[in-house]
Amino acid sequence: MAEKKWVYKFGGGTAEGSAEMKNLLGGKGANLAEMARLGIPVPPGFTITTEMCKQYYESGNKFPPELEKQVKEGIEHIEKIMGSKFGDPENPLLVSVRSGAPISMPGMMDTVLNLGLNDETVKGLAKKTGNERFAWDSYRRFIQMYGDVVLGLKPESKEEIDPFEEIIDRLKKEKGYKYDTDLTVDDLKRLVEEFKKLIKERKGIDFPQDPWEQLWGAIRAVFESWNNERAITYRKLNKIPDDLGTAVNVQAMVFGNMGEDSATGVAFTRDPATGEKIFYGEYLVNAQGEDVVAGIRTPQPINKATKTSPDQKTLEEVMPEAYKQLEEIRDRLEKHYKDMQDIEFTIQQGRLWMLQTRTGKRTAKAAVKMAVDMVKEGLIDKKTAIMRVTPEQLDQLLHPMFDPKAEKKVIAKGLPASPGAATGRVVFHADDAEEWAKRGEKVILVRLETSPEDVGGMHAAEGILTARGGMTSHAAVVARGMGKTAVVGCGALNVDYAKKQFTVGDIVVKEGDWISIDGSTGEVMLGKVPTVEPQMTGEFAELMQWVDEIRKLGVRTNADTPHDAQVARNFGAEGIGLCRTEHMFFEGERIKAMREMILAEDEEGRRKALDKILPYQKEDFLGIFKVMEGLPVTIRLLDPPLHEFLPQEEEAQREVAEELGVPVEKVKERVESLHELNPMLGHRGCRLGIAYPEITEMQTRAIFEAACELTKQGVKVLPEVMVPLVGTVEEFQNQKEVIDRVAKEVIDKYGVDVEYLVGTMIEVPRAALTADKIAAEAQFFSFGTNDLTQMTFGYSRDDVGKFLPMYIEKKILKEDPFQVLDQEGVGQLVKMGVERGRSTRPELKVGICGEHGGEPKSVKFCHRVGMNYVSCSPFRVPIARLAAAQAVVEEEQEQAK
Amino acid sequence: MAEKKWVYKFGGGTAEGSAEMKNLLGGKGANLAEMARLGIPVPPGFTITTEMCKQYYESGNKFPPELEKQVKEGIEHIEKIMGSKFGDPENPLLVSVRSGAPISMPGMMDTVLNLGLNDETVKGLAKKTGNERFAWDSYRRFIQMYGDVVLGLKPESKEEIDPFEEIIDRLKKEKGYKYDTDLTVDDLKRLVEEFKKLIKERKGIDFPQDPWEQLWGAIRAVFESWNNERAITYRKLNKIPDDLGTAVNVQAMVFGNMGEDSATGVAFTRDPATGEKIFYGEYLVNAQGEDVVAGIRTPQPINKATKTSPDQKTLEEVMPEAYKQLEEIRDRLEKHYKDMQDIEFTIQQGRLWMLQTRTGKRTAKAAVKMAVDMVKEGLIDKKTAIMRVTPEQLDQLLHPMFDPKAEKKVIAKGLPASPGAATGRVVFHADDAEEWAKRGEKVILVRLETSPEDVGGMHAAEGILTARGGMTSHAAVVARGMGKTAVVGCGALNVDYAKKQFTVGDIVVKEGDWISIDGSTGEVMLGKVPTVEPQMTGEFAELMQWVDEIRKLGVRTNADTPHDAQVARNFGAEGIGLCRTEHMFFEGERIKAMREMILAEDEEGRRKALDKILPYQKEDFLGIFKVMEGLPVTIRLLDPPLHEFLPQEEEAQREVAEELGVPVEKVKERVESLHELNPMLGHRGCRLGIAYPEITEMQTRAIFEAACELTKQGVKVLPEVMVPLVGTVEEFQNQKEVIDRVAKEVIDKYGVDVEYLVGTMIEVPRAALTADKIAAEAQFFSFGTNDLTQMTFGYSRDDVGKFLPMYIEKKILKEDPFQVLDQEGVGQLVKMGVERGRSTRPELKVGICGEHGGEPKSVKFCHRVGMNYVSCSPFRVPIARLAAAQAVVEEEQEQAK
Repeated sequence: MAEKKWVYKFGGGTAEGSAEMKNLLGGKGANLAEMARLGIPVPPGFTITTEMCKQYYESGNKFPPELEKQVKEGIEHIEKIMGSKFGDPENPLLVSVRSGAPISMPGMMDTVLNLGLNDETVKGLAKKTGNERFAWDSYRRFIQMYGDVVLGLKPESKEEIDPFEEIIDRLKKEKGYKYDTDLTVDDLKRLVEEFKKLIKERKGIDFPQDPWEQLWGAIRAVFESWNNERAITYRKLNKIPDDLGTAVNVQAMVFGNMGEDSATGVAFTRDPATGEKIFYGEYLVNAQGEDVVAGIRTPQPINKATKTSPDQKTLEEVMPEAYKQLEEIRDRLEKHYKDMQDIEFTIQQGRLWMLQTRTGKRTAKAAVKMAVDMVKEGLIDKKTAIMRVTPEQLDQLLHPMFDPKAEKKVIAKGLPASPGAATGRVVFHADDAEEWAKRGEKVILVRLETSPEDVGGMHAAEGILTARGGMTSHAAVVARGMGKTAVVGCGALNVDYAKKQFTVGDIVVKEGDWISIDGSTGEVMLGKVPTVEPQMTGEFAELMQWVDEIRKLGVRTNADTPHDAQVARNFGAEGIGLCRTEHMFFEGERIKAMREMILAEDEEGRRKALDKILPYQKEDFLGIFKVMEGLPVTIRLLDPPLHEFLPQEEEAQREVAEELGVPVEKVKERVESLHELNPMLGHRGCRLGIAYPEITEMQTRAIFEAACELTKQGVKVLPEVMVPLVGTVEEFQNQKEVIDRVAKEVIDKYGVDVEYLVGTMIEVPRAALTADKIAAEAQFFSFGTNDLTQMTFGYSRDDVGKFLPMYIEKKILKEDPFQVLDQEGVGQLVKMGVERGRSTRPELKVGICGEHGGEPKSVKFCHRVGMNYVSCSPFRVPIARLAAAQAVVEEEQEQAK
Repeated sequence: MAEKKWVYKFGGGTAEGSAEMKNLLGGKGANLAEMARLGIPVPPGFTITTEMCKQYYESGNKFPPELEKQVKEGIEHIEKIMGSKFGDPENPLLVSVRSGAPISMPGMMDTVLNLGLNDETVKGLAKKTGNERFAWDSYRRFIQMYGDVVLGLKPESKEEIDPFEEIIDRLKKEKGYKYDTDLTVDDLKRLVEEFKKLIKERKGIDFPQDPWEQLWGAIRAVFESWNNERAITYRKLNKIPDDLGTAVNVQAMVFGNMGEDSATGVAFTRDPATGEKIFYGEYLVNAQGEDVVAGIRTPQPINKATKTSPDQKTLEEVMPEAYKQLEEIRDRLEKHYKDMQDIEFTIQQGRLWMLQTRTGKRTAKAAVKMAVDMVKEGLIDKKTAIMRVTPEQLDQLLHPMFDPKAEKKVIAKGLPASPGAATGRVVFHADDAEEWAKRGEKVILVRLETSPEDVGGMHAAEGILTARGGMTSHAAVVARGMGKTAVVGCGALNVDYAKKQFTVGDIVVKEGDWISIDGSTGEVMLGKVPTVEPQMTGEFAELMQWVDEIRKLGVRTNADTPHDAQVARNFGAEGIGLCRTEHMFFEGERIKAMREMILAEDEEGRRKALDKILPYQKEDFLGIFKVMEGLPVTIRLLDPPLHEFLPQEEEAQREVAEELGVPVEKVKERVESLHELNPMLGHRGCRLGIAYPEITEMQTRAIFEAACELTKQGVKVLPEVMVPLVGTVEEFQNQKEVIDRVAKEVIDKYGVDVEYLVGTMIEVPRAALTADKIAAEAQFFSFGTNDLTQMTFGYSRDDVGKFLPMYIEKKILKEDPFQVLDQEGVGQLVKMGVERGRSTRPELKVGICGEHGGEPKSVKFCHRVGMNYVSCSPFRVPIARLAAAQAVVEEEQEQAK
């Protein structure tokens, strides 16, 4: 029987493994092998496989005899390439021992560096590097790390944070040092002695001087760290199987601090901030990797392109050979990985070593530019390009943002309800917001929570900040619809309307004070924070064009005004998926007529009041239809409970009574009779239209009069009338009869031809369950996943702030289901609704108009269940487009598997 | 080819059809044939089949030639038996022509009586009966009916209600008559002439004198009435297929008013009021059927058994021969139909004719007695017996009821929320109810709606009347739980707390006034209405024993107190399916400690307060466990939102603050912070236990300390701990961990063995959708169909009164889904929950504890989906038992098909 291969060598221009062997070699080992294969100079080494890990545990924590031989060969392989020898006092080879699982578990498992140092080799290292301090510092660090990781020397009491560090602290105190760098060679030698003594005391053993013993100890420790508590918990949380096992990588140490011919640096193959195709990086001569990061010395640019001042010395100038080699490697890596790489390198005595390459992080702007550039360079195809930009990154590009360099005094953090950066003076009432804005003031409207009465003030404000409510509270939904910055549910705020101030702990913010809010992070800041405008470069437009070529899902918008509709159309919306009509009732004369209707004694009185609203409604629809010429516009009939249109406070009730010429008792009585314990589940939606068909009639008339007039003018109008909150097919039938009757009446009167559809929201669980019956009557479905989520979970979105944060914290929920569609539960109803609906009406048009329509994961779900379109707030349209295209690519990838 | 048989003859002791041929002969025709077959003297006749009806429509409203011949034979058949001749002026045969569909459609289709009369035969009839007035009255009625039904003479304007009646009215006015009976023979002759003139004028034809022409016209009219608008609508509403068609029955007319040797009467084969086996009926000599009903003459008892005063003349005495024959027929019919029959008979010149037999209506008491008696007589088996009593009838037997003979002044009608009859003096506050009751007053508590704070007052009151809320509002649920009479959602009531009065229109009812409310009809009455007590006879107990032998579904009860538990156990409950623990927190010291907990600053403060509640909770469980010894008790952990435990009114808040020694601001602040827009969907159920695990811990401790103590005393306790409002398996896991931990702790401490289960309510749609995952952890499910209905429909049960009555009226809903489980929608989730739950845990115990657990149709549904038990309020336990047994029988009948 052939000997089992446990060890895979790499380095010296070749490797036994490759990037494909991640399961066997772990991610790190596979990538090191891949680089070696590409002829890139990586410090040589070898990987002990994940199978060894499994075998180790299966055999009761024992190594098979053949492993020793293979590890020996591995070390010989390293020695040969590095020209040094493991344990050689003159020319010692030092190695690192690192874990590397098939799935990255950053920081969960153990690492040992500088292995191979002992009382003898430390001297060899000092001589070789000409840096005695470095050698001894490396040695004391090695002992410290080995003591902790391999020998298990842990703190013994709560007070003792790290026993080794305490020895260092004592010494520093004794000597009056401030920094570790103050330690002299002698100090370090003393530390080495004291460390060894500590190990002897606590563990009863001598610190191992034999490098082989050190190596086996480290290998064993790394394998065992697979099952430390931290790693087990991490796997549980991230659903990583326990039986994958980790690999162990043993690799030669290289040093960038071996003199003036040594250096270390980091670089990006393209500019990670702008995306430009320049080789971007910095380095330090005679330094270790950590020096670059630590910021004690100032790193220098690697080349002319990244030089910012004439006195900088570039790597290109200082070590032209090494730089040239680095640049070649940059090209090779980009061609190989077909993406921008974040690389680490070390030059040890003139010789270049690549320590790492990985896909580099980048700004949103850079992501777009690189993706587009790489397509043009022929590196990647369009589908790959669109996968390179995350929908979250796009979001950054669509809103102005606070200057990242500005100083911020963050006093509280709420939910990032509507992205953007807003600065203004604090006001506490919607009226004040409108008044202040009128005289040119920028204001932030701060409320406990908002209600439809506040819409005017929200419009006038730069941003909205509330103490209560979740991601789909009134404030959040309306703000997103307006593209207005909002931070909601900021529980730290104590709002005092009477004193016109809010407090956060000791901080008091009064009316008129300046604050800034960041709708992308939820941060609330004192004072004015400067912003930078988003730049929509040509690449952005180009990328979005490819997105549109690839995606199958339509993207519409939720818009209630011609202005919002225009914004959305500019963002690429292909119609309106949700035009809420109730927002149209709140302005000026309209609300008066609306109140008149609600207070009317009988149908006749209601009709009289509705007649006054009709021209306004028609005007609204004329505007929206015009903007959306040629595209479908879904109009939802009146949805909210009527009490929302009457004021709850006595003073305001008195005003209404006066204005309408009715006794105030009547207003109060009506408010009282409209009061509901759970208005969310009360007399609203189609329940209103069924109780008062005259409302549905008026709205239908307004829609079709507008549509007919425009049709006469040659404007193509495609109205889709949507009945809200349907739970039984009988409700839909009732309303459809009214709509069809009035539509026919109006169309006949105008003598034109208007195509239209009548459909319904699917937002009540029962509607999804009986979708087959409803689809027999309805021509389209639009999933109202806000309400569907409320009812499927039994969560009031206005009250969920009371326990949802706790649920997320306790991991009872992974995400806020009002932000990210709950595919496991609510998603079942959505899927059921689509399938059952199409079972009786195969051509049924299906969309989604809940807040989820603009959330990338949810958009992808909508694609998978076969919807025709998603609809979202204007500013999320590009995000939905991108997500829809990515869904296509992901599906293709899935199928290819 | 043999001639197709369209006509089936009956009469003369035989028939061509039978009861099995309902589809071909219609219900009426088949039953007449059946009676004839039994040798019972029915007026002879024939049935034209439903196939003829179909053929008629298919062939463009034509009759096939062979029909004429068969109808002729049919008439000859009748003539032979009756000894008279169709159209014979001397001895005319008169017939009726009636519709008769396979499924009864009462009053929807047309009928023609006295057919065969014309200007000649009317004289023969006068001579034969010796009653000229009767003959001419019959003739004018025939013309009137024929004119309407066959000739289609309908009112021509809105003012004209009935053109024939207007002629009569004119004549009566002219003559100064008050009643139709004042009309003389001459008047009737004049009417005949004027009717004929009207027909000529309006329809342009002479009234047909040829009896054959009359007959064919009538047959055609009856077939066509199958497709009149009324009938089509009726079929649509009742889901009767349009292609069934109707049969036509042509039958000899017989007359009970042909002299002193003629009579007519109705009878029941047993006493329909008491169920006693006596032949029960009344008759009139020389009278028509309608005279018995009309009440102008006083009918006489048919026999000694039903004689109530010595001067009554029984049929037994007056016509002993006919009576003897009738009694024989009574026996034959009961033996044949195996049920009590409601019969109509006519004696024409000494000859007995049976006009109808059908299963007789009966009181609840009679239904039970007859069913049990018939089993003992060997007429029916036990399964048939239990199908003879409807669950609704049982309900009548379980509550006292208003004396049906008493006079009632009904002023309003609400929802019949909790059956029973209650009389008392009106009070408007729970405190008053308690106070008045203490001094011995009977009170009815009248509220806009009730809240948990009113429970004490509800308990003290005889009945509860509310202006708002539906069948599952707080008032309704609590009242049913208490077995307390309640009428809720009585919208006509204007309650004015300030004036301590309510008004209904002009009627003012003040505090202290007497009213009566009927919880079975929803009636609200002025004054005291006397009641009669229910009588539970031995038959009742016997029937319920059979019910228990047959049913497979367990029946538990919803009970929160030892008293309720005892009542339910007496009613046959096999355990508690829902013990709500929150009701236990409202009394005296408990509410104080509860409020202390809610107002506590931190966990420590909450624990301190909970420690005070623990002994009370334990005491409650001790009581309940003892009553339910040996039976399972499902205890639901705290469910309602915490704000329910704090008063909303300032005055009461001040009192609480004083009592607990905290500033009133703190109470207000907490009330404010607990305020929710939709508390139904807010921070309640397991969301509380997860936020405050110390509550779950205290409740678990109370349960298991009680269980352990009793176990030590040798009492068998089977606790089932139920986590409410679970929507995700993670929530359940969180709570189960706490319960298991504390249970183990307590059980270990006591050192006894207590078997227990931990399960969950399925009341959130998402729980049903993910039941497979939840069942992997939960040991039982109990469907909380109240909340499940709320969330599946999106109806708040507290607010549904605003639109549900309108929905029922507009037929958008057939029934209140809070009363009768919506099998189409909510039922899908229930079925899904059971199936998915058992898919991961086949032995999963499943029950229902919503209000539907006591509603017969819903109970049957629970049986069909395979639940283990239903749980309902104590007074509905017998009803659920009966429904469960009926479900078994119905299933067997279904399978037999």
